[in-house]
Amino acid sequence: MSEPDKKEITPEEAPENGKGIRNSGNTSETGNRKTKGDFDLAAVYVSDAQYNRNIFFDTTPQAIRLYLLYNHWGFQILVYAFILVDLALAIFEDPAVVPLPIWVTSVIELVCLAAFTARLVHYAKVIPRERFWKDPKNICIFAIILLSLVDMIIYGALKASGFYAVRWSRVLRPLLLVNITEGRQLRRAFRSIRNALPQILYVFLLFMFSVLMFSLMALKLFGKRGLKTIEGRPYFTNYLEIVFDLYVLVTTANSPDIMMPAYNFSVYFAVFFITYILINTYIFMSVFLAVVYNNYKKYLKEEVRKLVRAKRHKMVRAFGVLQERKGEEEPVVSQACWNQLVRLVQPDISNAHRELLWSVSDDNNKGCIGKVAFVQLADLLNIQVIMMKSRPHPLKTWLPSLYLSSPSRLVCRMVQHKAFMYTYDLIILVNAVFIGLDEEDPLIANVEWAFLVLYLLEILLKLYSFEPRAFFSRHQFWNWFDTIIVITALIAMIINSALKLCYTSRQILDIVFILRILRLIRVVDNIKRLGGQGLPFPVVYYIFAMVGMELFKGKIRFFEANSTDPDKAFCGNALLKNSVFAKHNYCKNNFNNIVSSFILLLELTVVNQCGFTAVTHISARMFFVLFHIVVVIIIINIFIAFVLEAFFVEYTVDQSNLQSSLEKKIEELELGVKQYVPDSFLSACFLPGYKTVDGLLQRMFEADLDPENFADDEDFDPNNPSNLNFPNPNFDSV
Amino acid sequence: MSEPDKKEITPEEAPENGKGIRNSGNTSETGNRKTKGDFDLAAVYVSDAQYNRNIFFDTTPQAIRLYLLYNHWGFQILVYAFILVDLALAIFEDPAVVPLPIWVTSVIELVCLAAFTARLVHYAKVIPRERFWKDPKNICIFAIILLSLVDMIIYGALKASGFYAVRWSRVLRPLLLVNITEGRQLRRAFRSIRNALPQILYVFLLFMFSVLMFSLMALKLFGKRGLKTIEGRPYFTNYLEIVFDLYVLVTTANSPDIMMPAYNFSVYFAVFFITYILINTYIFMSVFLAVVYNNYKKYLKEEVRKLVRAKRHKMVRAFGVLQERKGEEEPVVSQACWNQLVRLVQPDISNAHRELLWSVSDDNNKGCIGKVAFVQLADLLNIQVIMMKSRPHPLKTWLPSLYLSSPSRLVCRMVQHKAFMYTYDLIILVNAVFIGLDEEDPLIANVEWAFLVLYLLEILLKLYSFEPRAFFSRHQFWNWFDTIIVITALIAMIINSALKLCYTSRQILDIVFILRILRLIRVVDNIKRLGGQGLPFPVVYYIFAMVGMELFKGKIRFFEANSTDPDKAFCGNALLKNSVFAKHNYCKNNFNNIVSSFILLLELTVVNQCGFTAVTHISARMFFVLFHIVVVIIIINIFIAFVLEAFFVEYTVDQSNLQSSLEKKIEELELGVKQYVPDSFLSACFLPGYKTVDGLLQRMFEADLDPENFADDEDFDPNNPSNLNFPNPNFDSV
Repeated sequence: MSEPDKKEITPEEAPENGKGIRNSGNTSETGNRKTKGDFDLAAVYVSDAQYNRNIFFDTTPQAIRLYLLYNHWGFQILVYAFILVDLALAIFEDPAVVPLPIWVTSVIELVCLAAFTARLVHYAKVIPRERFWKDPKNICIFAIILLSLVDMIIYGALKASGFYAVRWSRVLRPLLLVNITEGRQLRRAFRSIRNALPQILYVFLLFMFSVLMFSLMALKLFGKRGLKTIEGRPYFTNYLEIVFDLYVLVTTANSPDIMMPAYNFSVYFAVFFITYILINTYIFMSVFLAVVYNNYKKYLKEEVRKLVRAKRHKMVRAFGVLQERKGEEEPVVSQACWNQLVRLVQPDISNAHRELLWSVSDDNNKGCIGKVAFVQLADLLNIQVIMMKSRPHPLKTWLPSLYLSSPSRLVCRMVQHKAFMYTYDLIILVNAVFIGLDEEDPLIANVEWAFLVLYLLEILLKLYSFEPRAFFSRHQFWNWFDTIIVITALIAMIINSALKLCYTSRQILDIVFILRILRLIRVVDNIKRLGGQGLPFPVVYYIFAMVGMELFKGKIRFFEANSTDPDKAFCGNALLKNSVFAKHNYCKNNFNNIVSSFILLLELTVVNQCGFTAVTHISARMFFVLFHIVVVIIIINIFIAFVLEAFFVEYTVDQSNLQSSLEKKIEELELGVKQYVPDSFLSACFLPGYKTVDGLLQRMFEADLDPENFADDEDFDPNNPSNLNFPNPNFDSV
Repeated sequence: MSEPDKKEITPEEAPENGKGIRNSGNTSETGNRKTKGDFDLAAVYVSDAQYNRNIFFDTTPQAIRLYLLYNHWGFQILVYAFILVDLALAIFEDPAVVPLPIWVTSVIELVCLAAFTARLVHYAKVIPRERFWKDPKNICIFAIILLSLVDMIIYGALKASGFYAVRWSRVLRPLLLVNITEGRQLRRAFRSIRNALPQILYVFLLFMFSVLMFSLMALKLFGKRGLKTIEGRPYFTNYLEIVFDLYVLVTTANSPDIMMPAYNFSVYFAVFFITYILINTYIFMSVFLAVVYNNYKKYLKEEVRKLVRAKRHKMVRAFGVLQERKGEEEPVVSQACWNQLVRLVQPDISNAHRELLWSVSDDNNKGCIGKVAFVQLADLLNIQVIMMKSRPHPLKTWLPSLYLSSPSRLVCRMVQHKAFMYTYDLIILVNAVFIGLDEEDPLIANVEWAFLVLYLLEILLKLYSFEPRAFFSRHQFWNWFDTIIVITALIAMIINSALKLCYTSRQILDIVFILRILRLIRVVDNIKRLGGQGLPFPVVYYIFAMVGMELFKGKIRFFEANSTDPDKAFCGNALLKNSVFAKHNYCKNNFNNIVSSFILLLELTVVNQCGFTAVTHISARMFFVLFHIVVVIIIINIFIAFVLEAFFVEYTVDQSNLQSSLEKKIEELELGVKQYVPDSFLSACFLPGYKTVDGLLQRMFEADLDPENFADDEDFDPNNPSNLNFPNPNFDSV
């Protein structure tokens, strides 16, 4: 349990209330006192544990200060902003949505690259040199910056001399998102993909074998019968075409078209396609999901276990820095030290919140806590606790006799009852029905006024029965939302009737009301936590969009509805004459710029319609097959696996132990609070669960993780190189 | 050893080797001796436990004999045959594939109904009267028979007087499959659907709410813009149409068509559709899967637990009938009794197999077994053990010097090596490639001969190195398969070259070879066990086919390719003029007979294309929505859930304890056997896992079931009515 640069502590001198701690400057004084440097170091450990950062920083005071700066939220936002700008350059580069001259985009890109370089240099200053070059992430970023520069120079030179040039380095840009220090969750998602790959590959080979065999059978069964497709082409005569068609059938995109010629010829041939769909669409796709889900669960558990071990290890280090030993007893940390530490880690924490956390940690009021209780701190800080000041309603102060009268009390009780909420949910639903009805009828138009009055009444009633400052506090998102929506609607309707405006403003009004219906979304509120796992999508989409744009840009043109160009009938490409693609007016589904590329890729995710492979060489179909494999077979299945797992956690796992002990404590304390402030309408604390995806993950597997078991930590030595080479390099650089 | 009709045993008299048992006739003598009635009763209990039958039969000797008859495999096959005939009547009834006069189908149906009635009466004789009428299954069958009769009379009368009539009772026919005593697995599948319903309903309401809200937004966003669909109809102007279109978008069937008009108008509208697809297709569909999977796991575990409890209870009863008590000791069953019992339960069991099972049960060679070991019997009998007689190769007897020479031994070792199998797998793959190549080339045609010779060589080599009777034993399916395929191919090729036949017979030959490729399927051999869970499909499909046929029969006509009828352009229905349905030549996708109905429903499962709702009232769309809800949202998800669970079991759960102890025992015994028969080429026993789906299910949850815990059984009283009303009536009539 020794520490990198821990100083000596004697418990006698540690002050009891945390106020008497002397700052001893930057000198790394030895002796019995804890220096500012010690607290900084401990705070960094706790903060790293809290946010699951695994950076092996230098422990010299200078390096720690640099490291604190590196972790400053401002710099983190700046990095993301520069990456966003870098990625957004695709909008302005050829093929562009909004064309800009090359020199403008190049300058912007250079600025971005400079920023990434600066960040990388900063990181290199924080961690030891040899560790910096051992980390593949740093090498990756370095390579991306270098390759981008090389590509820019080559591209500029080629363009200047009039040659055809490709900005190939653009596919590397989204990889920055994966490799920056903050991209932990994204890396985890990619790791779970990589871990599932061997098994997916095995099933995929079986699957492809099945597709190839069925194609062979199809060739033998249908090839010589002279059947024609609906477009008049020969049906199932070329082996590779059959393979592609049957592969697309797995995505169900060309069902039942691909089967119709054979089915029209003989009803028995339907058996072939039914068997094919049963085996390849249903069984194989389910097995893909099973493989991905199985691997996902297995490796995620392992990663979370490592995460928790690393977290504990950091907390033990922080404890080591701050511990005091009284004689033969177990080392402890005093409340004063603890307070100082928490204020350093989370400067904006309120005193009440901090005291609550202390009372949870120091359950027996001993004034100091041992290692086990101290280690909880990182998790405790991750539980979102909203402290509310319970103030009396202003009306109670101004008109106490009226506000405390029994009719007034009845109103307050009614509004605070759950039925009030449900009543208004119902009113919103009825409103939705009226919006759907024919609005030409003046009666129905007037009903809108009635609804508006009802909504206004709701807000006023709530303001009457709840304390207004609490009602409009920072965390009451839906209250703000409701109020803004209703006031906007009120203003819009008044303007509308005052100016006798025509239909358009009515329409805006309707949309405002429909937005209000979003309020009902709160029932599925925790879907947002799933967001973290969807992250691989943008990275993969961006890469495919870049490649797709180089392959297909300008091959298909979109004509406005009022265009009379004769090329409109075949999307400006004679190869598409009479194709289903052109007939269905899909011309806007093209790779002509980044926006339409993204929309097209989303369409391809849903249904792999790839009509326009006709415009280029047949091998471009590989692009669509590859996209299907990567996005539908792998990433969507990981997404589904996460939904399944999160759902099971929601339904089967109880609250975390820590969260329930915190809630218990709050209830205990509240009991006391309530006696003094009888009309506090909001419970003093809200606990909407863990703040972070990491927290959710930890909760998922908490049942398997023994919170008291420190034996693991003993054999976890971050300086041991074997721990640096996890099969899944979860720790950024520990 | 002893004979099937053995009578009294006194433990003292029971000889150690089971040969001296005296027969004492059919008297139901009491006392220390066990009568034939006792053995019959015990055998029925064991057999019920083995096959998880839960029928509360009378225990009088007459009832037991009737019950044994009821369970006779001949009667069970007859019942299935009659149900199959009854279901197949749909082929001959109007709208018919092969029309038969009404009187013919009616007579056949009457015969079937008579058979079902006879079976029901037989069942009523076996179990107590009051239990018979308490069982909803019996009432169900009774009602189905009665309603079918009523329907036949009404239909006949209406037809005779020239009115329009509907054979509505046909939708009830598949319910027979669910309600017969043997339909346990099907009932379990339906129960798991029913159990998931409340949660599915909740998610479904949220989902429909989301669809309705998005439709409302779509109406407001697009309704007044005067957009047109590709077919020229107004785009998104009618609320109900929008709801339907957006519902279909969830199935991805009309993507991207439904989005194109809005997307062509403005690129920003794509955001609406992307949000919609993300929420409703991906998130909601994943949540449906999660809900179904979660419920599936939960209730299946509960059911398997009950199944195991009931099985143990029956085995304890059988033990109670046969037990002997020596003084103060625990009651036991002697080997002689046990042998007699096993022979009664499984008359075709070999002596070696029975002795193996005994040696597993009586691990310490005490000559008798206690309750715990006895209860295992039902599971032991369910483990498939194939006993092989190890005979010397005939060539060894005829030409020992040649067969035992070292080159001959080398050949045998080579053929028995795994590499031999892989080599031939590779040869089959190469053959597949050659089949895919252009067969006009005479060289390639001749290559076929080479492959045929290789395959013949393989079979001859195997016959040389393996004992021929063992090679062609009953359980060696793939050996039979290979041999038949190769010999068929040989005969076909000889005839082909002798008669100089043209292409057609070559094609047959190719198909024969492709069939051979099926041999490679053995890698995914255990997929067949999934069959049990797919069973709900036929029942649901049949019901939907019946309803669909009444709704849509004759509305769409299919014209042969060479037809010149002008109606061909719109499938014989003017309402389909210029529709996408007719343009794509989907006319054969209709409900005109049971075969095309089934194929169409399968297509609807894959992609819910419902183009021909145009031919009838718009409310017929409900049929398609309902089909999607029932089949895609519920049944397919249950299927996927089963695949997921079975996959996890395959990869994570080890063999059952019983199975491994059996295998250990076999290894012990084999060691002795091998010394005497050194050239036995097949291991004496194969253990291809559990025979039944029930066995697989039990293995899935074995970890949670304590095999030694009999406490459960004590409080499980089959005579207690509360045990008769399980929330899931898993026990047929216990």
